[in-house]
Amino acid sequence: MSDLVTFGETMLRLSPPQGERVETARELEFRAAGAESNVAVTAERLGAVATWLSKLPDSPLGRRVVSGLQQHGVDVDVAWSDQGRQGTYYLEYGGKPRGTNVIYDRKGAAVQTTHPEELNLDAIRKARVFYTSGITPALSNRLRETTAQLLKTAKESGTKTAFDVNYRSSLWSEQEARETLTRLFPAVDILVVPFRDAQQVLNFERDPRQLAHHLAAEYNLQTVIVTNGEKGSLAWHNNTVYEQDIYQSDTHDAIGTGDAFVGAFLARRLSGDDVPRALKYAAATASLKRTIAGDIATVTKPEVEAVIGDDMQDISR
Amino acid sequence: MSDLVTFGETMLRLSPPQGERVETARELEFRAAGAESNVAVTAERLGAVATWLSKLPDSPLGRRVVSGLQQHGVDVDVAWSDQGRQGTYYLEYGGKPRGTNVIYDRKGAAVQTTHPEELNLDAIRKARVFYTSGITPALSNRLRETTAQLLKTAKESGTKTAFDVNYRSSLWSEQEARETLTRLFPAVDILVVPFRDAQQVLNFERDPRQLAHHLAAEYNLQTVIVTNGEKGSLAWHNNTVYEQDIYQSDTHDAIGTGDAFVGAFLARRLSGDDVPRALKYAAATASLKRTIAGDIATVTKPEVEAVIGDDMQDISR
Amino acid sequence: MSDLVTFGETMLRLSPPQGERVETARELEFRAAGAESNVAVTAERLGAVATWLSKLPDSPLGRRVVSGLQQHGVDVDVAWSDQGRQGTYYLEYGGKPRGTNVIYDRKGAAVQTTHPEELNLDAIRKARVFYTSGITPALSNRLRETTAQLLKTAKESGTKTAFDVNYRSSLWSEQEARETLTRLFPAVDILVVPFRDAQQVLNFERDPRQLAHHLAAEYNLQTVIVTNGEKGSLAWHNNTVYEQDIYQSDTHDAIGTGDAFVGAFLARRLSGDDVPRALKYAAATASLKRTIAGDIATVTKPEVEAVIGDDMQDISR
Amino acid sequence: MSDLVTFGETMLRLSPPQGERVETARELEFRAAGAESNVAVTAERLGAVATWLSKLPDSPLGRRVVSGLQQHGVDVDVAWSDQGRQGTYYLEYGGKPRGTNVIYDRKGAAVQTTHPEELNLDAIRKARVFYTSGITPALSNRLRETTAQLLKTAKESGTKTAFDVNYRSSLWSEQEARETLTRLFPAVDILVVPFRDAQQVLNFERDPRQLAHHLAAEYNLQTVIVTNGEKGSLAWHNNTVYEQDIYQSDTHDAIGTGDAFVGAFLARRLSGDDVPRALKYAAATASLKRTIAGDIATVTKPEVEAVIGDDMQDISR
Amino acid sequence: MSDLVTFGETMLRLSPPQGERVETARELEFRAAGAESNVAVTAERLGAVATWLSKLPDSPLGRRVVSGLQQHGVDVDVAWSDQGRQGTYYLEYGGKPRGTNVIYDRKGAAVQTTHPEELNLDAIRKARVFYTSGITPALSNRLRETTAQLLKTAKESGTKTAFDVNYRSSLWSEQEARETLTRLFPAVDILVVPFRDAQQVLNFERDPRQLAHHLAAEYNLQTVIVTNGEKGSLAWHNNTVYEQDIYQSDTHDAIGTGDAFVGAFLARRLSGDDVPRALKYAAATASLKRTIAGDIATVTKPEVEAVIGDDMQDISR
Amino acid sequence: MSDLVTFGETMLRLSPPQGERVETARELEFRAAGAESNVAVTAERLGAVATWLSKLPDSPLGRRVVSGLQQHGVDVDVAWSDQGRQGTYYLEYGGKPRGTNVIYDRKGAAVQTTHPEELNLDAIRKARVFYTSGITPALSNRLRETTAQLLKTAKESGTKTAFDVNYRSSLWSEQEARETLTRLFPAVDILVVPFRDAQQVLNFERDPRQLAHHLAAEYNLQTVIVTNGEKGSLAWHNNTVYEQDIYQSDTHDAIGTGDAFVGAFLARRLSGDDVPRALKYAAATASLKRTIAGDIATVTKPEVEAVIGDDMQDISR
Repeated sequence: MSDLVTFGETMLRLSPPQGERVETARELEFRAAGAESNVAVTAERLGAVATWLSKLPDSPLGRRVVSGLQQHGVDVDVAWSDQGRQGTYYLEYGGKPRGTNVIYDRKGAAVQTTHPEELNLDAIRKARVFYTSGITPALSNRLRETTAQLLKTAKESGTKTAFDVNYRSSLWSEQEARETLTRLFPAVDILVVPFRDAQQVLNFERDPRQLAHHLAAEYNLQTVIVTNGEKGSLAWHNNTVYEQDIYQSDTHDAIGTGDAFVGAFLARRLSGDDVPRALKYAAATASLKRTIAGDIATVTKPEVEAVIGDDMQDISR
Repeated sequence: MSDLVTFGETMLRLSPPQGERVETARELEFRAAGAESNVAVTAERLGAVATWLSKLPDSPLGRRVVSGLQQHGVDVDVAWSDQGRQGTYYLEYGGKPRGTNVIYDRKGAAVQTTHPEELNLDAIRKARVFYTSGITPALSNRLRETTAQLLKTAKESGTKTAFDVNYRSSLWSEQEARETLTRLFPAVDILVVPFRDAQQVLNFERDPRQLAHHLAAEYNLQTVIVTNGEKGSLAWHNNTVYEQDIYQSDTHDAIGTGDAFVGAFLARRLSGDDVPRALKYAAATASLKRTIAGDIATVTKPEVEAVIGDDMQDISR
Repeated sequence: MSDLVTFGETMLRLSPPQGERVETARELEFRAAGAESNVAVTAERLGAVATWLSKLPDSPLGRRVVSGLQQHGVDVDVAWSDQGRQGTYYLEYGGKPRGTNVIYDRKGAAVQTTHPEELNLDAIRKARVFYTSGITPALSNRLRETTAQLLKTAKESGTKTAFDVNYRSSLWSEQEARETLTRLFPAVDILVVPFRDAQQVLNFERDPRQLAHHLAAEYNLQTVIVTNGEKGSLAWHNNTVYEQDIYQSDTHDAIGTGDAFVGAFLARRLSGDDVPRALKYAAATASLKRTIAGDIATVTKPEVEAVIGDDMQDISR
Repeated sequence: MSDLVTFGETMLRLSPPQGERVETARELEFRAAGAESNVAVTAERLGAVATWLSKLPDSPLGRRVVSGLQQHGVDVDVAWSDQGRQGTYYLEYGGKPRGTNVIYDRKGAAVQTTHPEELNLDAIRKARVFYTSGITPALSNRLRETTAQLLKTAKESGTKTAFDVNYRSSLWSEQEARETLTRLFPAVDILVVPFRDAQQVLNFERDPRQLAHHLAAEYNLQTVIVTNGEKGSLAWHNNTVYEQDIYQSDTHDAIGTGDAFVGAFLARRLSGDDVPRALKYAAATASLKRTIAGDIATVTKPEVEAVIGDDMQDISR
Repeated sequence: MSDLVTFGETMLRLSPPQGERVETARELEFRAAGAESNVAVTAERLGAVATWLSKLPDSPLGRRVVSGLQQHGVDVDVAWSDQGRQGTYYLEYGGKPRGTNVIYDRKGAAVQTTHPEELNLDAIRKARVFYTSGITPALSNRLRETTAQLLKTAKESGTKTAFDVNYRSSLWSEQEARETLTRLFPAVDILVVPFRDAQQVLNFERDPRQLAHHLAAEYNLQTVIVTNGEKGSLAWHNNTVYEQDIYQSDTHDAIGTGDAFVGAFLARRLSGDDVPRALKYAAATASLKRTIAGDIATVTKPEVEAVIGDDMQDISR
Repeated sequence: MSDLVTFGETMLRLSPPQGERVETARELEFRAAGAESNVAVTAERLGAVATWLSKLPDSPLGRRVVSGLQQHGVDVDVAWSDQGRQGTYYLEYGGKPRGTNVIYDRKGAAVQTTHPEELNLDAIRKARVFYTSGITPALSNRLRETTAQLLKTAKESGTKTAFDVNYRSSLWSEQEARETLTRLFPAVDILVVPFRDAQQVLNFERDPRQLAHHLAAEYNLQTVIVTNGEKGSLAWHNNTVYEQDIYQSDTHDAIGTGDAFVGAFLARRLSGDDVPRALKYAAATASLKRTIAGDIATVTKPEVEAVIGDDMQDISR
């Protein structure tokens, strides 16, 4: 029985070394990467018992995903499929003025046909929190329905639901996203919204604080978290807003920062921390993630606590 | 104006180091690889002017294919597409008792929707030889028609046509292959048949020599080449059968051996060699290919000739 | 509840590339490696539910071991320790006339102080088979006792016990080994003996078949397996001896071959196969292991079955 | 028929990883690199049809150069030579206070004996622009004459000439450079001058703007570009001076920045852009180059335009 | 006969690539690293003749240490031992907010049992300077005595002694360090103290300048150097204090910066430079070290002098 | 004072990975490699004190050579030069039917202008054996004279001279070699002749045994060694011929096998072994070399003795 169950697509990420372009690359780094499994891994590493549900092709590629997640101790419970591909993405590390470039190759992924009945719904029912993100319903019509049904399943069993808007403009239009997401929000307990997504998708023009109040009221949410890049984050909970600055970091790989944030927040809430404490953990974990290669926050609790305590030195020996 | 024009799918090939499995790999080698472009590259390297026609996604992945072929001097003339993926395959080098393992991820590749009108048909019309292989019509119904139409275009313009059966059991059934291929053979001038394919697909039970006679007669072919693995190859031409042993080789990477054979045969025929001489070249090039990593035979004419002349020493310095 | 529980030391293995010496190496490959965890991984991969028990230093090195095993799905249940090191070994791939060279650096490893009470004894009690090898009691006096106690715990709970002699001359003398092992054998149900070890340690001069009969009688064993390198293996069971040839293989990395053999045998016995069938599986898995880098047999059931069925081709595509 | 033809030496560049010294390196990255081929590649990538002329040793090293340029689509038209070496250079990436260190090994390179008759002069005659740089006449007396003759050939055929001063103090003295270059300038239409070179070689003490006016008047130039490092660049054309700031960038590899600038400027002028627009393209391409490993600006037109439009985000997905 | 003899432990350093964690690493870089051998190498590279004394296990690991030092020309004169391990450490490069992480695995190292009689004491007696650091007496009680005896041996033979406090909190407590070190100081001629160590270990609260005066007076030292991180360093000598700013640097690898500083200072003093000149050399060498991977300052005298002269450009070619 | 002094050119060797061609390589391995330094390293490693004399460019490339030799403990005593290049060679590992391919780039190497006065002649005078090979006089006229003078210097001081014919057809013609070498032989004490070289250069048609007798008589040699590839070797000494089979080996890298042979023979003769014992050592060392990457035989005395004793097992642990 897991504290946290997440559902979503995990891809294989292929990236040439720093400074190389995919067009001329000869070697690619190979890793498992996906928003919802990133969240599960971070939560597991920080003390929660986490399970990731999904559907994978029954192939070495599908098994590569499993291997990449299991090594962190996450429970992987997937439907194996003879149909559908393993989604991949190619990542070119950039730097000013060239941004980090993500080239998705996820069309036709096995996960896109996942019907709720293929998944271990009992795991969701027995969990304390169920999490997915706005990427999932963006992947296919089937997943739009499945997402709604899984949130419903959770709600009906008393499992809390957490959801990150995670808008990806390459997957759907702002309008499609808005219509789908606002239909899902009523089933959500803990909502995470990057402020930029709120502006783009929800046409929300005011500030993060007002956004949180607005969303909480509109959708009867228990907790609303608004992340705002370098400007920090805030959490609305029980009508109170808690603010949290980011921790400065030297960025080696920015991908997965948001997922590390969410995974840490959920793990600490599950272990009994109050909202501001969990938010601090989330910010510290996110800053550590940026120093680590790959999508996944390979951190430990003492490391996160050292950031919070600000007592790490340049070289500890 | 090229001597040789080929058409087909070229994939990106991803392979972990010797001894590693895809399931646990962390680094992958990254190369362009496709039967028809392999043939074009080999022919170009051995003296022909070669063009490869295809359709590629307009992305860094499509450009990676172009880069991998252009470096060998082949003219790349492709339709760029906003639809469809770039096909890939994963290759695990094996060794007894585990075979070399190929995991295709080529579904939905842009090339599968290629209509003849998207291609530079003039290049085919002006070429001396047009080549494609049995992989192409196996990829989609659209390509089944396109293959037929390209062969027809070639024939009508006086361009000779060359075709390698290249049966891939993962792409279509023996029956489908048989029906399609035998409908294409009448438009072929130079037919290459791996003897194993003939047994599997054409239900031909007799020996390679009889196979050549049979196919030449049945489809009114100018040249028939039968390759037979370690047992060597033979060419039927003008009612004469020429036999050729393989050259012994230490195999580093067996993929692409057949394409190197065909590319060398065509290059030498185009440059005026007679059939037995071209066959000898083909066998020598194939043996060299096996010592080289990747699908592509990065060889030179003097190297091939050194094999034929058998005058290379272990270390030349 | 696991089918198979194993206990022993897992080291971190550091190896320079083929042809390089440790003395001048600049890069080392880094993997988890240990006889008993190798057995657990192989069994898990071939269908058993397996748990590995041990004691590890609470450090990134200890966690590296866990990560390397969990990725294969094995349940890792370890005592974390603030005392003691993480054992390592350095491996130089050789080739005639230089053998593969193993340089142990395992002195003072945390595992050497493992008291049974630190381990999850319930896991042993509830398992169907408990496995350890002759390496474990060779590591320390404490482990000599612990090994005896764990075998006793298993026996008393009706858990079958399996044991591989695995003699390592660098860890103890033949005499020490003989005295200790023969005291442990009465608590063993399934005994695996490399014939060379029997000659060296047990001073047994006759042939493998007689060895099996002798050991079975002497120690009242249920099953005796004698492996004999290139000459194959045999299993004594219910007074019948079954023989099994090896499957020929191209060796990429021979380390772990014996563990792959044992893991496969146990997995198949646990799933209900009879002794000769399990032995065939064991031989096939061992042959596959030799083609794979690292100590661990990253194989799948279909791959093992393809070897047995002898129906794999050189390149399958 | 190419829009742009360039002539010059291309070397093989060997560089240890970041932080490593050549003195203790064990692995070197291996690339083709040369000012005039860099310009050709950038121009080709941004829409021009470009040909690079040179002389190379007929060896795998000469072919390595060809392969490294052809992959970008540039037409390579070289004289193959049995005499002379392939020039190389070793590059150590630095960082404050150690600069990036370039160790040339280009003495005796085949290119140094190039006589105009060995080159495809027709390509120059039919091109719209011919380009070479001040490195070429610095390499040998023979190349001093050849450079003059090629500029003359271009002029006489109505091909515009472009020239970058590119002063290299390791190749010749300031006085030698001054005497040679000022003799070449009258045959130049488009002159590119790094301001530092003007100060060092031309003893010009005033500011870039005055330099441009002065050079244009003195040598009757059509266009003068003065680059001035972090301070930006300017172009004099038809008596008007256009200024252009640099685009900020995170520098991964600064080598080739100037060549990217020139290649982009020429490509855009050839495609009809006016001078200020081409200058903006040049600055944007130069800033992108700095994020890319190797001498060559592996960029695309949309990427350059995204920099100009300043509409790229940190991670686009 | 060497100018400088040093004694201490040298470990093998294992580090995953930038951004990777040891927990999930698959490749490790492998180098020799130790404070006292770092000092010897720097001194040798800057003109001194240097010998490193130590005790190593007679194994490929011990030989790896020797190989890593001898390549820089240092004379290695070690006692080979059949007892004891080769110490290692694992290094994770960090970045804000995660510091660089050092995981020692040096318990039971052969060096810890070194008795003075095992070493070439004549080398110390004939040297002009003998150097060790506060790491050495922290490693074992045996080494505490050996350190004292070696300093005494040096003193009695007229060899100057140099000592760097080099406090490592993972090896001993502040109190233990204080007691041991203050007992060693009277035998020291040249003392190097990082200001942070003085605050921690010596409970010295005032400023670096006062610290130098205080130590010189208290222990009758000839020279006291206080390093103070980014704030620079100072040297007390003959009652005069010389101050030296750091040279700005882009840090690739900070480990070994202090040793490079000391090695350069000693080398230049040995070659006759006065204290402020040697201090300048030390600061410049330290800044160069930070740009270089590994513990060792692979620099040359001209490079150091270029930093002092501030006459290096970004790219010199 | 060294037992053995050698003189010759050492190059930097650049090689792509197995299976890759230089033409398309992106990474090259980087090592020091030269016949006479190979001999010195092998001898040093097997117990002799060895010095290598040469002339190197004063550059990171020259220092790379020094670093690569010093790491093995050889004393490097070179003339540093501001003129001349560092020679390099590129090596492509082959396999049947493509041989291992060596591409020299050694023209204009600094060593080619070495005058005896630039070298430490005292080292030769005080050594017990001086060694060089037929490569040295093949490199330049200057070196032809220098070789003669160094042999003369040795002879006059009572230093024994050893010489390996080492014919390289890419450096000089058979006739040039014959004329030069036969003029040098009278100054040689110990002559090593590959039988193939004797056939090619000396036009000697009979068998190795007769060759040895003939050469010993003709040139008044003390010892003649004839190596004959897979057929083994023989040594003529005091009118007796000793024969030695090769030890079978798995070849990873054949380059340097002959130098390992000679280095081991000389080391063992210097340490007092008789000729047949030294020959056995030589054959064993040569067989070990073939398993090791690079030109250099990174072996130890116990490893060589294990081969002779034939008591190594496949994996020793």
